[in-house]
Parts: sequence; C-alpha cells; structure tokens
Amino acid sequence: MGLFKAAGVVYKPVEEIDLGPDSNEFYLKANVKAPRMAGFLVKIFAWFLESRIIGTLLLYILKRNNLIHKLVSNATLEEAPMFVPLHPFVDLNEQEVEQIDSDASPAERVQRAMNCLPLTLEKSVDDSNSSSFRRWTIADYSRAYSSGEITPRKVAEQFINAVHESSRAALPMSFFINYDAEDILKQATESTLRYERGDPISALDGVPIAIKDEIDCSPYPTTGGTKWLHKVRPCTGDACCVMRLRSCGAIIVGKTNMHELGAGTSGINPHYGTTRNPYHPNKIAGGSSSGSAAVVSAGLCPAALGVDGGGSVRMPASLCGVIGFKPTFGRIPHTGVLPLNWTVGMVGILAGTLEDALIVYAAISGQLPSHEPTILPPKLLFPLLNSTNPISEIKFARYGEWFNDCSDEIRVCCSNALHLLCEHYKWKTVEVTIPEIESMRLAHYLTIGSECTTSLSSALEKLDFAELGWDARVALRVYGAFNSKEYIKAQKMRNRQMQIHKNIFAKADVIVAPTTGVTAYSIFDDALKTGELDYINGAALVRYQIAGNFLGLPAVTVPVGYDKEGLPIGLQFIGKPWSEPTLMHIAFAMQALCISHHRKPKVFYNLLHKN
Amino acid sequence: MGLFKAAGVVYKPVEEIDLGPDSNEFYLKANVKAPRMAGFLVKIFAWFLESRIIGTLLLYILKRNNLIHKLVSNATLEEAPMFVPLHPFVDLNEQEVEQIDSDASPAERVQRAMNCLPLTLEKSVDDSNSSSFRRWTIADYSRAYSSGEITPRKVAEQFINAVHESSRAALPMSFFINYDAEDILKQATESTLRYERGDPISALDGVPIAIKDEIDCSPYPTTGGTKWLHKVRPCTGDACCVMRLRSCGAIIVGKTNMHELGAGTSGINPHYGTTRNPYHPNKIAGGSSSGSAAVVSAGLCPAALGVDGGGSVRMPASLCGVIGFKPTFGRIPHTGVLPLNWTVGMVGILAGTLEDALIVYAAISGQLPSHEPTILPPKLLFPLLNSTNPISEIKFARYGEWFNDCSDEIRVCCSNALHLLCEHYKWKTVEVTIPEIESMRLAHYLTIGSECTTSLSSALEKLDFAELGWDARVALRVYGAFNSKEYIKAQKMRNRQMQIHKNIFAKADVIVAPTTGVTAYSIFDDALKTGELDYINGAALVRYQIAGNFLGLPAVTVPVGYDKEGLPIGLQFIGKPWSEPTLMHIAFAMQALCISHHRKPKVFYNLLHKN
Repeated sequence: MGLFKAAGVVYKPVEEIDLGPDSNEFYLKANVKAPRMAGFLVKIFAWFLESRIIGTLLLYILKRNNLIHKLVSNATLEEAPMFVPLHPFVDLNEQEVEQIDSDASPAERVQRAMNCLPLTLEKSVDDSNSSSFRRWTIADYSRAYSSGEITPRKVAEQFINAVHESSRAALPMSFFINYDAEDILKQATESTLRYERGDPISALDGVPIAIKDEIDCSPYPTTGGTKWLHKVRPCTGDACCVMRLRSCGAIIVGKTNMHELGAGTSGINPHYGTTRNPYHPNKIAGGSSSGSAAVVSAGLCPAALGVDGGGSVRMPASLCGVIGFKPTFGRIPHTGVLPLNWTVGMVGILAGTLEDALIVYAAISGQLPSHEPTILPPKLLFPLLNSTNPISEIKFARYGEWFNDCSDEIRVCCSNALHLLCEHYKWKTVEVTIPEIESMRLAHYLTIGSECTTSLSSALEKLDFAELGWDARVALRVYGAFNSKEYIKAQKMRNRQMQIHKNIFAKADVIVAPTTGVTAYSIFDDALKTGELDYINGAALVRYQIAGNFLGLPAVTVPVGYDKEGLPIGLQFIGKPWSEPTLMHIAFAMQALCISHHRKPKVFYNLLHKN
Repeated sequence: MGLFKAAGVVYKPVEEIDLGPDSNEFYLKANVKAPRMAGFLVKIFAWFLESRIIGTLLLYILKRNNLIHKLVSNATLEEAPMFVPLHPFVDLNEQEVEQIDSDASPAERVQRAMNCLPLTLEKSVDDSNSSSFRRWTIADYSRAYSSGEITPRKVAEQFINAVHESSRAALPMSFFINYDAEDILKQATESTLRYERGDPISALDGVPIAIKDEIDCSPYPTTGGTKWLHKVRPCTGDACCVMRLRSCGAIIVGKTNMHELGAGTSGINPHYGTTRNPYHPNKIAGGSSSGSAAVVSAGLCPAALGVDGGGSVRMPASLCGVIGFKPTFGRIPHTGVLPLNWTVGMVGILAGTLEDALIVYAAISGQLPSHEPTILPPKLLFPLLNSTNPISEIKFARYGEWFNDCSDEIRVCCSNALHLLCEHYKWKTVEVTIPEIESMRLAHYLTIGSECTTSLSSALEKLDFAELGWDARVALRVYGAFNSKEYIKAQKMRNRQMQIHKNIFAKADVIVAPTTGVTAYSIFDDALKTGELDYINGAALVRYQIAGNFLGLPAVTVPVGYDKEGLPIGLQFIGKPWSEPTLMHIAFAMQALCISHHRKPKVFYNLLHKN
C-alpha cells in the first residue's frame, strides 16, 4: 500500500499557534471528493463497500481522499487523549441570572424559569392586528388553558387532525414515526381535568411536546429511525428527560421522524418517509432531528426534544427556522437515550422561541442520575430574560474565513444580523483564527462512527442488512472502518481542540458563526427510497457544528432571516462550558431584533384557534 | 467472512455474579493456540503477517482462535467504557503508617522512610558468620560509606569491572544497553566528596541504581530496546523519577536491557543480547524489565527502576528472585517514560528487599507534575516496618482455580508460603471466584497493543522495518490489527472488571496469587538473533499480572522459594487502590518468613567487598 501512504501532519504545540486575525494558520475547506449518489448508485456503492476486498480498498481510498490519514490517522500530536469532554465547573460570574437549587423539582424549575421571562402581550398567528408572524408559545398555551379559552383536550384533537392531514398531503410531511391518538387524548383529558380543578402542575401542563425517536418514551418503541433496532432493544420506559417533562404535565405527543440511526443530515428516511420542510415541502428539513424541527416549525408543538451528536438539533432547527439549543455536555441526563454516540451526542431542545427553549431546559436539566459521569456546577442558573439591564460587554469571536465559507445569502444575512446585534447592544466582535477545524471535523466523524459501531455491534451481528436503508448501510460500513489507533488519535485531537478553544475563549465570550453553510436543499425523488449520499451538502451542513459536540460546548441557533426562496437562515452562538445563561441572553437579544420579520411556513397549523 | 464469524458472549450484570467459592462462573484457561517459533519460522511468520491480504486473514484467524472476537470484540456488556484507571482517593484507615507531606523533597521522604525501617544488624553476603545469603541493602551501602569502610568511588569502580566481566563471560549477561563508565565515576566521585565532607544527601547517596531503558536518563539515549527509537525521539533530560533519585544522591549506573518495545516477556533482545538469569544463565530473566531484575538479582544494584505495562516489573522480579513493586496507577510520575502504553504502564521498583523498595518508592513518589492526570491521596503514607505491632486481621482473597493454574512446584511453594504467613500472623484466607480473567487479559492486550501502535505511529511511518527484531515485527503487526470498536469494548471490560474487583475487595483486603505460572525457562540458541514467539510460556508468565495494569491496582511480588532447578518463585499480593502501606506490610511479613532461605545466584557480584 506504499503507493497510497499519506504522510501525517505534524501539529505544532498549541501555545505556539497564533489565534489572532493575521495568523498564518491555513483555513482548509472541507475536502469532500464524492459525487451525490441516490437510487441505484447508492445500492451499487453499498454493495462494493460491503465486499471484503474491494470494500477494504475503497474505504482506504475514501479515508485517504478525505484527508483522514493525513490529518488524523498518521498525524503527530503531543496531547494526551481526551475521551469524554467533561468540563470542570468554573464560576463565570454571569450577569442577570437566577440561581436555582439543582434538587428543585422539574415543575418548580419550570415555574422559576417562567419568572425569568418578560411579559409578552403581543398577539399571535391568528390575530389580524398583528403585523407579523409569531408561533404560539408555551406561555400562550398556559394562558389560554388557564383562562378557559381552550382546553388541552381540544388542542390534542386539533393536533391529531393536523398530523393526520399533514401525512395525507400531496407531499406527506412525515413528521412522526409513531404517535398514538388514544395516548395523547388520555394525557390531554387528565390535563384538562387539572385545569378544571384550577390545579395545573406547571406552565407546561397540557402543552404538546414531541420527542425524537432516539429517546425512550412510553408507550412507543424507540426505533432510532430504523425498522429493527426496537426489536433488539425494547423500550422499557421513559428516558429521564421525558419523565421530567411528564412530571410537569406536558403532553407527550409522539416520536418524531429522524435520519436512520442519526447517520445523516438530510432527514431522508426510506422507512418512515422523508420529513419535509414546513417552509417549502420540496426541501429537506435537515437532520438527524428532522421531525422535531419540522413539528415545531409547523406549529404542532411549541417545543420538541432532539439529540445532537453532530449538529443534529441545530442543523434542522436552522433549516426549519426555529431555535435549536444544545447545552454543555453533561448538563441534561442521557439516561434513556439510544447510546449511539455517547461522548458527542446529547439531548437538545428545539423551540419556536428562546423563552420556550428556556422553559424546556428548566424542566429537563438539573441533577443527573448517579451513574452518569459529569461534573455539574453547584447551582443551575437561568438567564433573567426580563431584566431591563442588558448584559454588558459581550465579545464575539469571529473567524472570517470560516464564517464566510457558506452561501452568499447566508453570509450576508448572518453578517447583517451580527452587525445589528453589536450595534444595538454595543457588543464587540473580535477577529480570530480557529485552526484545524477540518481536522476536528474528521476526528469527530471518526469518533461518532466508532461509538456507533460499538454500541450497535451486538445488534448488527444478528441483523439482516436488508432491513437497513442503503445510505445507512454505507454509513455503517465507513463507521466500522476505523482502527484503534485512529480512534485514540482522534481523542488526542479532542484534547488539542479543547485547549485551542480555551485560548479562543480567553479572547472572547462567545464564538459566532452561521449555523449551516447552505439552506434547506431540494428533495429529489430518486432519494426517497434509497436515501442519498450527498457529502458536499452534508459537509456544508455540519461545517459549524463540531465544536458543540466534540468539545461538549453549549451552542444555540437563532433564526435571523431567509434566503430568496424564503428558506430560513440561522445564526449560531457557541459558548464557554457552562455558559448557558449568557448564551441564552445573547440568543434572546438576537431573537428580539429579528422576530418581527419572521415569516409563516407554507405548512402551518394553528392549534390554539377556537373554531 | 460469515464462515469465521464468532458470536459474542453476553455478559451478565456485575451485581448478579456470584463471587463466592461455589460460584458457577467458569475459569477459562488461556486458550493459546500457537506453537513456539524462533529462527527462520519467526521470519516467515512476520513476512506473512506483513503481507496485506494473507496477513489480514491470518490476523483474523489469530484473533478468533484466541477468543478475542468471542470474549471482547463481539461481546455484549452494559458498562460504560473506562479509558484510564484513575482511582478516587478513599481513606483506608491503614494501620501502622507514617504520614508524609506530599510536598516534602525526595531526600526528606527518603529519610522519613529510613525511620520506618527496622534496624538490621544481620551480616551479609560476604560474611562467613552468616548462615544464609542476603544481598547488600541501601542501608548497608549507607552505613559502609558513612563509616568510611568503602567509598562510592570504589563501589563504582567495582561496579564497572563487574559489568565488564559479566558481558565477557561465556554466556554474556547483557545486563545493560548503555552504561558510561566516565559518567558513573563522576557521580561517584561527587558522592565520595559529600561523604568526606560528612554531608551525604540521603541514605541513597552513592548507592548505584539502574534504570530501564524505557525511562529517560541523561546522558543516555532512550532506546526502548530498539535500534531506532532514540533516533526519532531523542532523550532531552532525566525523567521525573530519575531526577528525584539523583536529587537524593543516587548514582545512576546506566540503562538496563529490556525486551524490544516492552512487547514481550522473555527479555530476549536480538539487538542488545539476551539478558540472562543470574540464578541460571541458560534461563531467561523475564521481561520486559529484564536487565533491571537481573542487575538487582546479581548484586550490581540494591534497586532498579522498571516499567510495568503487563507485569513487566513483577514477572522478571519473580523469575530473578527479587522484590518487584508496582504502585497504584498515578502514584509515580510518568513524565519522561516512553509513552508505549500510558493507561496500563507505569514505573515500578525492583529491589533486593522490601525495605529498599520502600526507600526508592519514597524517593520517586509524591506530587505529580501538573500535566499528569491523577487523583492523588492528600498524604503519602509509609508503612512502619519497624512497628512491633503486626497489622491485624488481614484477609486474603484466593481464587483456587486461578491460583493453581501454574506449575506444580509453584503451586506447592506459593501455597506453603501463604499458609505460613497466615499461620504466623493469624491472617485469614477467603476463597473467592474472580470471573472473566481471560476476558480481561485479552482486553488488556488489545489496549496495550492499541496504545503502543498509536504512540509509535509517526515513528513507524518512517521506519525501515529491517531495523526491528522479528518478534517485535510480529507484535507490532498484531498490535495494529484492532479496530476502534474492539478498543472501546476493551475499555468497557475495564470498567466491568473494576467493579468486579471492587466487589472482591469488599470480601478481602488483598488478592493473593503466584506471580507467574512458570519459572524461568530455557534460552534456546535459535531465539538469540530473531527473538522467539512462545505464547504458551508467555501466557503463563502474564497470567497473574493483568489486574495490576489494566485496573491500576498496586501489586508486589516477594520471592518465596525455588523450584528443583534452583529457579526463584514469587508470590504476588494485589491490593486495593492506594493501599501501598498495607501491601508493603504484608510483603515485608512474607519476606521475613522466607529471607533466611534465600539462595545466592550463580552470577553474583559483591560490590561492598574491600579487597
């Protein structure tokens, strides 16, 4: 194999890297060399990959062409491997926050979070006096239930009708993998009775919340977007985060569609249908939490849970024009989530507004079950979004070459939004250089692939591969192709990037970048049955995601505009470990400047209308 | 490859395992299916392994035949991976200990350790009044220097002559890879001057200490037993532990021979000669710290440093009839040690007596450099070996099937020694079952191989394989054959065994077992140039080592007798994390019961004689 041998990069010591704007560190564009494939081509490719000899050779060439050998496998770097991105607690002295005891109950936490919200008296979607579009929020539901304008039962009925309608449209939306009308109505009836007794549990009582089908949730199987995983791994009860939502009275309305095994970013699922983008049903919703993003976007739920292992919450949120929020690694219990990628993936929140993201965050955060490794801060901090003092002196780190490595429309839109934000709040942007982003992407890919292969190994042994989608077959073959040296090298890269980001955060509070390099792209018919391999669009989608996952940093995407086709654009803020309150303050400020321009999706359901 | 597919074991939850003597857990003997190979056969085998296609197939078959697929790769186990065996500190309330501040200087610590020793007035090797053999100890050197009986300079000269003589014998002993007479004499002269001024630094002043050639030590290259590693990784100064010994006045007498890359257990090194066993120069010294064990055994140094990644200190110590002591993972600084296997390997001590092991331990333990990850206990505890109160109520855990899986002579000798110990001190033995020992061995092998491949990867890229010994070539090819899933599964196994051992330690204070399953075996001429592959003897040597490395537990081997060829037999004690004082108390008690029967090796040098 000497012919193919790729010499490895020798990385210099972190302390010698110039992170300033004039650094001579090179920005390496994702070197993706693969044509889009769908239909028969994907099948052929999967067959080749699965053949022992040709497959091994193909994988070798793929890894070399994508610079994995050069940047990771054969690289020289001195850092010790870091296998789990656990962050020790550092008191960030955050401004305008409310301290909550970690052992407060979920419902108590939700009420404390409600106290942090500004009073919103603005009218909403159906109100003709309102000049612009605004989704109903959790507070809207809560008020409408408490005033008796509408009941949870009625909302549930309208929800069921809407989902039914959406799946029978000419372009079926494929929001859910499973939803059980009876179970939904039962929860709604109980909630309605609580309101009738004047005794709702919390502001979440009666509010429809959807759960990605990667998170355990009774009475549903956890398919992970597959046709088989739930058969080998039966769901035995609610995941910890679902249990917490339930204890607040939320109505769990079903399991949302997702990219099979979370192994792709388009949300095209050959088994359960392709989730379509409510802003344009011919476009992808993004993935892997495609259904969770789409249901929030389409007004079916004010919030939903997703899992973010490589941008899987933030990407579809951005593509569907909603908030996507991934807290610090270890902040949300992982128990009951499919262990597909346990050191990079964690539960994240999709919501119509930042306020609703905060409420759901309040419900599901707090103490972890004792077997989960983490180093949680002593107190849970919520941002006082109702404070009249804007938090002062925020510094954004912006890496120009990376920030601009996206479509023109995204670049202009995100730059304008950032400019607006800095102008309005007198916040500052500092130009920086973040080196080795592409190396980190590859190391992350190698990690997510290795972890997925490990957790599925017993299941895959018994599996008839015909039960897998074709693109998932390709993904699993590539995922299984990494050796232990490559895995350990990737963990060294994690430590290295952790130190690099620590140094970036010495210069600024938050890193800012677009959420994705492209907006929602078209769904082609040839992909519906086989899935598709579109590594170029895929790379553009994940371009800005990796630090959030590989380093466990908190990150949030806020919708800041639309491209000329009317497809949403998101701006992303990536924070220091445990800086959720600051991050939410910033996202809230950004939202405030953009919300009046929000547009209504083509597919939208108004569950609070009283017909 | 369906033909070869090995279904994986499904491991039951740890809490369901019966660890009692009547458990139905099965003791699986190491399933080593490979004939001994040396000479031309090793070359052929290496060539086959290195060929891409046949090699891949061969490796697959090797892994399957050795049950790696069944017990690790395809196994199902629920435990989260544990990548580094870091133990949180637990106060064990140890008896009869002296507390030392962690920030005391090495020389201070050595003096405190000296105060813990009993006064030994017994005569020694050259004394005709003495009925039995006893090696000179550090205290003997210190007394002889202080009284002016002999000077460090004189000892150094005798040392140099002895090494010279040993390497010119009919069977050259090959103790050292490098030693520099001038550097030794320079150190000795300085030490002599200090004694002349009446100002020695510590009890170690002027005492010859040898260092395994895996540990950085000026002015020598660090070869790791290879012909090339020092060319790609120059030694730039003393390792932290060497620096500490030097600061106590010890004379660093050179770099001891070792198995190439620590990748074998025989100590047969085709580049620097095969270290021979001082008890019988036709037998192996064991490895990989072969030279360090042999120089202590042969009286050239009262103590030496080794590195123990898979028994590499304890095995040769046992085969050469000396003390081998491996503290808890993280107790000794690792800085300046070749990073061949950083989560299982650490510096260990070889010494003629337990007292001398304690002195060297005192010198090199203490605070770690800040970049080394560990959770050190707040105080350093030394056992009060001079206490007249024996520590009470020790319970030994003994797993009969495992304990007895060794040669008859070892079984009888170790059983008798344990019996004697329990009788004499009224200590107790509890019968236990330690499950999945063979699974742990394989998981450890997979880990050590993956780590070695990772740390050498940049070097190997540039290396002409002809510079490697043949057995090392085979080892490296197997080491590189593990995929990331297997590595992660092995780390899950580590967590699982950690819990199993925690449960064993709830039943007993210390695990007791022979140190090796065989005594030193013969060196055949066909192995001298190519090395040999003797996996059956290899498996017998490592059988009792793994918990010490993979779980980072402290362990010590004590010479307790001889087989009928006069080859030493060691008994091993494996302790709870941070239980070094108890472990040393027990080892000291065992030594006291055996020391009067110690025999003099065939190759022995008396450096304190005044000719």
